[in-house]
This record gives sequence, structure tokens and C-alpha cells, in this order.
Amino acid sequence: MTVESRRLEIELEADGGMEDLTEKVERFVESSEVEEGAVTVYMLGSTGSVTTLEYEPGLQKDLPEAMEKLAPSGKDYKHHETWNDGNGRSHIRASIIGPEVTMPIINGELVHGTWQQVVAINWDTKNREREIVLQLRGK
Amino acid sequence: MTVESRRLEIELEADGGMEDLTEKVERFVESSEVEEGAVTVYMLGSTGSVTTLEYEPGLQKDLPEAMEKLAPSGKDYKHHETWNDGNGRSHIRASIIGPEVTMPIINGELVHGTWQQVVAINWDTKNREREIVLQLRGK
Amino acid sequence: MTVESRRLEIELEADGGMEDLTEKVERFVESSEVEEGAVTVYMLGSTGSVTTLEYEPGLQKDLPEAMEKLAPSGKDYKHHETWNDGNGRSHIRASIIGPEVTMPIINGELVHGTWQQVVAINWDTKNREREIVLQLRGK
Repeated sequence: MTVESRRLEIELEADGGMEDLTEKVERFVESSEVEEGAVTVYMLGSTGSVTTLEYEPGLQKDLPEAMEKLAPSGKDYKHHETWNDGNGRSHIRASIIGPEVTMPIINGELVHGTWQQVVAINWDTKNREREIVLQLRGK
Repeated sequence: MTVESRRLEIELEADGGMEDLTEKVERFVESSEVEEGAVTVYMLGSTGSVTTLEYEPGLQKDLPEAMEKLAPSGKDYKHHETWNDGNGRSHIRASIIGPEVTMPIINGELVHGTWQQVVAINWDTKNREREIVLQLRGK
Repeated sequence: MTVESRRLEIELEADGGMEDLTEKVERFVESSEVEEGAVTVYMLGSTGSVTTLEYEPGLQKDLPEAMEKLAPSGKDYKHHETWNDGNGRSHIRASIIGPEVTMPIINGELVHGTWQQVVAINWDTKNREREIVLQLRGK
């Protein structure tokens, strides 16, 4: 079994700032010996998410707008009584979408649809440097 | 380590059409040599999801209805300015629920609750042939 | 390859009762031989979820409140016609957040942010004893 992990640091804007990680993940898969296995793309922290998305400018606005309806910015969250940091909405959005996605590798290639990219999203109320772990497991 | 991958193609109806994949996954697990490990059930494309659900006719309507509230059909998404394909809601629903679930295998058996099935969901606005990858990793 | 699985049973309150599993997962990782790999934290059943969350009292109320808006308690779900058990909302919340999270292990340590805990959530309308599987895969 081969396990390889790589840490990335990326700058993301506040309230739904995104980066398409697909190319970085593909280069990592190509550079490794793993031909059959999986890669987990995982965000550290409790105000960010990883998921797959068609990465185009329209959806980069549409997804945060939908999450704004589910966990609105103006609301007085109980989280604010604990820390007074005003980012209750960010935590809720992050926990619903989740911190990771695990994608298959077959014949040395990352499996995804043509318009399906793997993206990191910052839900925090401030621009943030976010830490991502890419982990390959296979043979 | 054993890694085995299988591709499935399934026909799903528009706007929340579902198929229960549990039996197919269980047959794949039984046919393989893996006794201890995990299976990732993964949907290709950016307008579909995989999750677990009690697969019964009521919830097959209730879940799409809840997602309709979160990302309504009538809305004018910015995604439509990019492609004019009218399926902005489908992308949002797919990205929130996510494209995959990873389930443990113990003693050669898929671990799930009695009323917990693994289901593929098509959120697109048209009936679609969807491609699924089942991937077993273990020993 | 090493695969180790452990079953936990935990008591959770109704409608969003939570437990922070981080310490239990960390102790499992420390007790095992796996230095590089991943752990899947998986809830059996169709009315519960596993995700990461900053585990503090405010968010323990805020997250269920947001899910109440998405799948409200008062609603007459079609699920109730099938079973008459009144927990349609619980199934919807569970399927959207999902039953599992897969987290990397690097240098024998579980990777997570300082304020990022892995939590089990019971969405059912009754207090429940819930079954969790922790599964380590690595080397």
C-alpha cells in the first residue's frame, strides 16, 4: 500500500471565496506511484468546505447565495455569544457541505466528470489562508 | 492491499430521480476478496449526488421538495448567463449533498443500518444516464 | 495494509443531540499501528449524521435551528404516510449532511483544525442509542 499526503496553503476570499483544486490534485496523482486507489481532499478548520462543483463564474455566486438563504448573514447566532466573532453562518454552511471529498483513481487518473471540479470554499467572514490536505491511498 | 473498481450506468429521472444502489454494492463486496476495508460510491458529473437515505416512496418525494426550497426551480441563476441551460438549481443541490459516500466493510459485509440505503440522485432538469464508480479498497 | 474497525454506541438526545467524537477517534488512532492513512467516522441508520463542527454550546443550537428552516418539524411529510412515525424531517436532515466523514492520519496523528471537531448528530425525533463505526485504513 502507498500513502502520500501533501499540504496546500491557499488564499481564499470571504463568504464563499473558492479555488478549483482539480489541476493540483491531478498533478499530485500523476507524480505518485498510485495507479489504483483514492484521494481525499480535506480542508482543515471549521469554516470551510470541500465539494465538487462546475467551476464557472455564475455558480461561484449562486452557491453562496443559496447558502445565504439557509444561514443568513444578518442573523444573531448563539455562536456569537460564545466568541463574539460574528461568523455563526460560516460554521453552519461549512458543517452542512462538509470538509472533504474522496475521489477514485483508476489507471493512474483522477475520476471526475468533464464539468465536475473539486473546489475548496472559504465560508468565513474574512479572507483566510486555508490549509488543505491531499491524501492518496492505493497501490 | 486490494483495490477493485466497477463502473455502473443507470438511467435516472429529472429533478430528484433516485436509484437504490445497496444491492449492487453488496453484490460487488461479496464478489471481491476484500474482507476488511471500505467502498466509495461516487457519481461522475456536477448535477448528481450520492448519499444514504431510507429508500421509500415518501422520502423520494420529500427530499427533492426540501431541496426545491433551498434552490428553487423558478429562480434566475447566474449560471444561466454562462450556459443558458437552466439547471442552476441542479448544480447547487448536487454540491451541497455531495458526489460520494464512503462506507466500511467488516467481515466481508457492507456496514449499513436496516433502513439505510445508499442512493444515487439525479438533480438535473432532464432525465439522464448517470455514471457511478464503486471502488473497494481493503484486504 | 492495516485495517482496524471499532464500533461505538452512544446515547444522543432528539432533534440535533450531538457528541464530540474527536477524543475517541484520536485514542483509536494512537492505539493502532497506522502511521499514514485515513479514518472513516460513519453513523449507522438513516436519521443521523457525522460531520465536522466547532463543538461549542452556541453552534450546538444554531445548526439544528438552520436545519429546522430547511426541513421544519411542523410539516406533513409524505414519509409519514408510509410509516406514520413523524420523523420525515429527521431523514431529510440526515441525508443532506450525510452519514460519514473521512479524515487523514499523518505521522500517527489525526489531522484536524484546532476548533474543528468530528461530531455525531441524532436528527431523530426521539432520544436514540446510535451506532458509530470508526475505521482506520493505512500502514
